[in-house]
Amino acid sequence: MEKEKKRNKKAVCIMSGGMDSTLSAYIMQNEGYEIIAVHFNYDQRTQTKELECFENICESLHVEQKYVLDLDFFKQLGASALTDKNIEVPTNGVEEGVPVTYVPFRNGIFLSMAAAIAEKEGAQVISIGVVEEDSSGYPDCREAYIQAMQKAINLGTKEETNITIKMPLVHLKKSQIVQEALRLHVPLELTWSCYKNEEKACGVCDSCRLRLNGFEKAGIPDPILYE
Amino acid sequence: MEKEKKRNKKAVCIMSGGMDSTLSAYIMQNEGYEIIAVHFNYDQRTQTKELECFENICESLHVEQKYVLDLDFFKQLGASALTDKNIEVPTNGVEEGVPVTYVPFRNGIFLSMAAAIAEKEGAQVISIGVVEEDSSGYPDCREAYIQAMQKAINLGTKEETNITIKMPLVHLKKSQIVQEALRLHVPLELTWSCYKNEEKACGVCDSCRLRLNGFEKAGIPDPILYE
Repeated sequence: MEKEKKRNKKAVCIMSGGMDSTLSAYIMQNEGYEIIAVHFNYDQRTQTKELECFENICESLHVEQKYVLDLDFFKQLGASALTDKNIEVPTNGVEEGVPVTYVPFRNGIFLSMAAAIAEKEGAQVISIGVVEEDSSGYPDCREAYIQAMQKAINLGTKEETNITIKMPLVHLKKSQIVQEALRLHVPLELTWSCYKNEEKACGVCDSCRLRLNGFEKAGIPDPILYE
Repeated sequence: MEKEKKRNKKAVCIMSGGMDSTLSAYIMQNEGYEIIAVHFNYDQRTQTKELECFENICESLHVEQKYVLDLDFFKQLGASALTDKNIEVPTNGVEEGVPVTYVPFRNGIFLSMAAAIAEKEGAQVISIGVVEEDSSGYPDCREAYIQAMQKAINLGTKEETNITIKMPLVHLKKSQIVQEALRLHVPLELTWSCYKNEEKACGVCDSCRLRLNGFEKAGIPDPILYE
């Protein structure tokens, strides 16, 4: 009965093709939610690879409904190493503060669009794979921000729209994320984290370093290819 | 001295080409802000006309910096009479509740993008022409929502980014908006409010009705053409 009821619950899952958002979607499915998968192409360096990963992950999740959204905006805006090819992706290790890979208010835009989809589709939940500690230092990955955004979304949509933003990884370390992903049989070989490359991961950008560090601390080899 | 200082202050003004957002931008200029004008093409019915009005208004404001953003998203989403041609624009008068012209979380998406622009450009202010009372009943035009969004934006951007969202018309009636626009010499003949038509305003959609009612109560003729 309870399970049947939960099957009618829908979660709009923001999925980049990376490890964190993939695990978040698997957690939602595990909790009984029907997944509406949302992916953004925003002219990021690894757009083709991320989309390919997203599609493969959707297949492995048996997702029936998905939105692939093309967003020219960030290219027009520039101001980040991920969307402006004139700014180099740092490879010397994760530093303090907000790095040049930060895309201004990216998660704000992603969550706003996810909210519009959730309102249209009658979904109760949005999931996002933000990680606050052990992360890249992006301000739009903080729990306090996501909570404030949830409040704004519920004030700015219809009375009958009540959305909870779930961020199941926000307080996990990368090694815990790897362990949880293994426990839930998440196909980590289908995920991509590298900011720079699309064939073999570079291993030295912040995103590769955080990922590799997680696998190392979990004592498990990363199944994807590195340069 | 004070004026000189203010000239370096920037306001990202969301401008549809309509009366409310135009007056809001004029108020910002009057307060000494340098305007960064932002307009959205989102496949709304009157897109061509709104863009033309925006461009003309920018000229009359001597705007030096503007962003015209193409947003396919709302067409893909549908679910509103403004973006889905299968849903008719109501013409029988403004009714209680959220009308079918409501575009899910439109202002959330607009404000998120404006926030990204403000962060990149180092702007202190975003202006939006929302009107709470005497309006179409859209949830994303309420003061409480805009305040919550401001909080979310400041939590989700860099420490040094501090943005105030100004909504100078939120508590005005349409007749007061007309009067204020005249006082500030806003070229109302360049603005467009109709949801349906691009040559002559229909006069019977909610937006035309609210506008005409404002002019009537202000005792002033509307300078644009009606069917």
